[in-house]
Amino acid sequence: MKFKINSTLSYHVISPTTFFFNILATNSKNQKVLSENLVLSEGIEYHEYSFLNEDTRFFKIHVAQEQLFTINYEATVAVNTIEFHQDLLMELMPIQDLDTAVLPYLHPSRHCESDKLFYFASNEFGHYANNYLKVEAINNWIFDSVAYCPGSTNSSTSANDIFFTRIGVCKDFAHLGIALCRALDIPARYFTAYASNLTPPDIHACFEAYLGGEWIVFDPTKLSSKNGLVKIAHAKDASEIAVASYFGNAICTYMDIQCEMLSAPEPAV
Amino acid sequence: MKFKINSTLSYHVISPTTFFFNILATNSKNQKVLSENLVLSEGIEYHEYSFLNEDTRFFKIHVAQEQLFTINYEATVAVNTIEFHQDLLMELMPIQDLDTAVLPYLHPSRHCESDKLFYFASNEFGHYANNYLKVEAINNWIFDSVAYCPGSTNSSTSANDIFFTRIGVCKDFAHLGIALCRALDIPARYFTAYASNLTPPDIHACFEAYLGGEWIVFDPTKLSSKNGLVKIAHAKDASEIAVASYFGNAICTYMDIQCEMLSAPEPAV
Amino acid sequence: MKFKINSTLSYHVISPTTFFFNILATNSKNQKVLSENLVLSEGIEYHEYSFLNEDTRFFKIHVAQEQLFTINYEATVAVNTIEFHQDLLMELMPIQDLDTAVLPYLHPSRHCESDKLFYFASNEFGHYANNYLKVEAINNWIFDSVAYCPGSTNSSTSANDIFFTRIGVCKDFAHLGIALCRALDIPARYFTAYASNLTPPDIHACFEAYLGGEWIVFDPTKLSSKNGLVKIAHAKDASEIAVASYFGNAICTYMDIQCEMLSAPEPAV
Amino acid sequence: MKFKINSTLSYHVISPTTFFFNILATNSKNQKVLSENLVLSEGIEYHEYSFLNEDTRFFKIHVAQEQLFTINYEATVAVNTIEFHQDLLMELMPIQDLDTAVLPYLHPSRHCESDKLFYFASNEFGHYANNYLKVEAINNWIFDSVAYCPGSTNSSTSANDIFFTRIGVCKDFAHLGIALCRALDIPARYFTAYASNLTPPDIHACFEAYLGGEWIVFDPTKLSSKNGLVKIAHAKDASEIAVASYFGNAICTYMDIQCEMLSAPEPAV
Repeated sequence: MKFKINSTLSYHVISPTTFFFNILATNSKNQKVLSENLVLSEGIEYHEYSFLNEDTRFFKIHVAQEQLFTINYEATVAVNTIEFHQDLLMELMPIQDLDTAVLPYLHPSRHCESDKLFYFASNEFGHYANNYLKVEAINNWIFDSVAYCPGSTNSSTSANDIFFTRIGVCKDFAHLGIALCRALDIPARYFTAYASNLTPPDIHACFEAYLGGEWIVFDPTKLSSKNGLVKIAHAKDASEIAVASYFGNAICTYMDIQCEMLSAPEPAV
Repeated sequence: MKFKINSTLSYHVISPTTFFFNILATNSKNQKVLSENLVLSEGIEYHEYSFLNEDTRFFKIHVAQEQLFTINYEATVAVNTIEFHQDLLMELMPIQDLDTAVLPYLHPSRHCESDKLFYFASNEFGHYANNYLKVEAINNWIFDSVAYCPGSTNSSTSANDIFFTRIGVCKDFAHLGIALCRALDIPARYFTAYASNLTPPDIHACFEAYLGGEWIVFDPTKLSSKNGLVKIAHAKDASEIAVASYFGNAICTYMDIQCEMLSAPEPAV
Repeated sequence: MKFKINSTLSYHVISPTTFFFNILATNSKNQKVLSENLVLSEGIEYHEYSFLNEDTRFFKIHVAQEQLFTINYEATVAVNTIEFHQDLLMELMPIQDLDTAVLPYLHPSRHCESDKLFYFASNEFGHYANNYLKVEAINNWIFDSVAYCPGSTNSSTSANDIFFTRIGVCKDFAHLGIALCRALDIPARYFTAYASNLTPPDIHACFEAYLGGEWIVFDPTKLSSKNGLVKIAHAKDASEIAVASYFGNAICTYMDIQCEMLSAPEPAV
Repeated sequence: MKFKINSTLSYHVISPTTFFFNILATNSKNQKVLSENLVLSEGIEYHEYSFLNEDTRFFKIHVAQEQLFTINYEATVAVNTIEFHQDLLMELMPIQDLDTAVLPYLHPSRHCESDKLFYFASNEFGHYANNYLKVEAINNWIFDSVAYCPGSTNSSTSANDIFFTRIGVCKDFAHLGIALCRALDIPARYFTAYASNLTPPDIHACFEAYLGGEWIVFDPTKLSSKNGLVKIAHAKDASEIAVASYFGNAICTYMDIQCEMLSAPEPAV
């Protein structure tokens, strides 16, 4: 199916500031950017680059003096409808057989202190028969246990923080999901995306768990619709793929994120 | 019923050290010290005093030079068998009707950061019909969720720490119980006692919740037997009534705690 | 010298709420309330009580239905000018000679996790020749190291939090001072007061250290003027003497705190 | 100059366990492994792989049943003596000119919560004229402020933990250095190495800061000698390049690390 993305961000730059944005839709096995257009305020240039993994697209902007500037990103993206067979997802994946590229996602990271959640995760989810059932139970448990409340957390909030407070936003839900998976030795990573039918519209965060040899998306907020996501990036957690990180002095003054599904999902056969 | 207590503690004092002990059985409405004897190594003197509440008995020792010293405390204590009627415990106690002496036990304390557990406590236990049922659910939840493991924590460990790690000893179980009660606006306090039939024998920690106008003991470790406790003290948490706190340089080299029930509990009528 | 206090607080009560206020000036050895008047919105009653120590005056209000209500507290208070001789303050106070009423202020508390600051406090302040010089160094170090920023913290913030972030308000500065003193085995407690010449006017928080047998006030914010404080209360930390704690659902809609010095300090002889 | 490495590690495997080791010396621009030999207990196989960056060499072992096993790694490694001109290191490196491969080392990571140390780092080190002087000041400050004590921390300990406790081992010193650099927008990364003349011999951890276009090693423990390190790996922090991480149930029963300098450093011209 196809999606139309239209993102606008405005900043008031107070002193010289370097920005790194991670808002471009990725190209991957199951997703193709058909067309895109990035328009910046006059006189501002950007430099696109990748790192972490080749699919992730960043761009850098340096604003040398005080000014207002606006970024507009429009894209049309085709995304394959994917149906996984639960039987395959439930296949055992012993650690020693994991692809080495997957191993980093077993370790704790800044916002996912899985090393501190071992006992809880084992007691609460350790008895399920396989990793798929464990992740599904984690996802449901987060949805049931954590209140979704815009503005309740900040960029320093980690999985352990909301494990206490039980309140957060999509990135926090995702971080907790990742931390609980890794505590059970299930590879898990952070996933950002445009999401159709999200209210209010925003860049969304979910998590992916590595099950049966595939990275499977889970959304513990249950706010996004199945097959309604346009992937931007994945990483160990939000510290690596912030929507915008900046060095200098600037204030975000406006943000409008639109993601519209242009064609209905095709029926799975 | 009657209990016979016999506690021996030995210390190697390396440099001049002041000790404060809280190991003497308390006298209260339901407990009476029938006889007691405190014997210290020759040349060591102690000074008994109370604070916090008049029932709590501390004694102070100053050891001026390097030496080994031993404390032996023997006591015979009568404890009333208490039976509470659940109907009374389930009576509502609006905050505005609480005795003012009870109010401090609503606030967070060093080891019971109840202010950080509000959402969890509300979601997990808020739906029970009254405070008695809430505390009972908290007590069972701790027993089910936290592993008892000697040596797993230290004197800095707090309720929030074991809320993560899910492993601790009796004082940690008690602190978590207190924190969860206070998070629900139920007064709760820390409670130390000699416990008959405890394996291994040690000074035990439980918690008390204020229900129906009475302080009711809960033991989330479920290690002590009903009506098998000889109370030493209560306080906001362990920071106020450590078994031994000392200022100087000394090492505890030996500890033997015995508490034997001399007479069987009388049947409740 | 004399002070005139005039405090007004307004609340929008949304559902039945019980309030506990700690805003009445205390009577103590060095301070006398000459006259006072507490006026509440019509139909609201208050009940005054003390606990913790007899000098501390709380009052309780229960508001049974949605409404706006306002408290106005006016008082005239005489405060003795106190001058301490540094020689006396520098006298050694061995732990074993401390009054037992002072001992609780050696222990960590909710907002003053002194047990975690032992190494830092020893390294940074341990070399000063006596407790007075240590506390003075702590006070200056906090003033130099922590940024004062209204709104930067909340009621859960503790000494350890601002030891990291190095930003806070008067209560946080006080908590850090207390934690560092206790880490060095110096008794220290939290102290709230009306302060003349404070900008903006507010109820102020400082800390007291026990030196030479006296509780000496230190203000690491350096915002209050010497002998310009009218004491409200002291306690282990803010968790025990919040200006207002309430159980229910209410919003503070207005707060105006005035403290005017009516007579100049008399010259110390 | 040349180094001879000889590492032996033994494990008691209790149940099937997969190990990932990061103990092989790296090949890089300034370091060449001249010869090496990895010997494992009979019947144990290893699989070498790289990730994170091509220089970093891991190997994987799966032990399928209870047994004792031993790894011995011998290598001869040539390392260039490097001398940096302070003038070059002091050159300004604006964020917008940084190589994109360096950018990940600006972000917080599991053990280096730089986002929480911003105010402290700015106040304490922000006034130095350039990044080189800032990092040098950080390195000296850690050496002066933190006590080195074997066994004082564990694998969950982070920079923020020892910022409080002021006690740790080499990995903790390195993590704190990294966190403080990143808090000042200076790229910094974790660095493991064999170190000649280290007492007791062990795999050592330092940190590298990116200065004047080069990664410069700093050792806040001041235990290693200049030009006495044989690099194993670098990463965001220890969570990514643990000496050994294992999944299963095993106990390390023996560890012997030797690193001998075979030839003296050549004089810098």
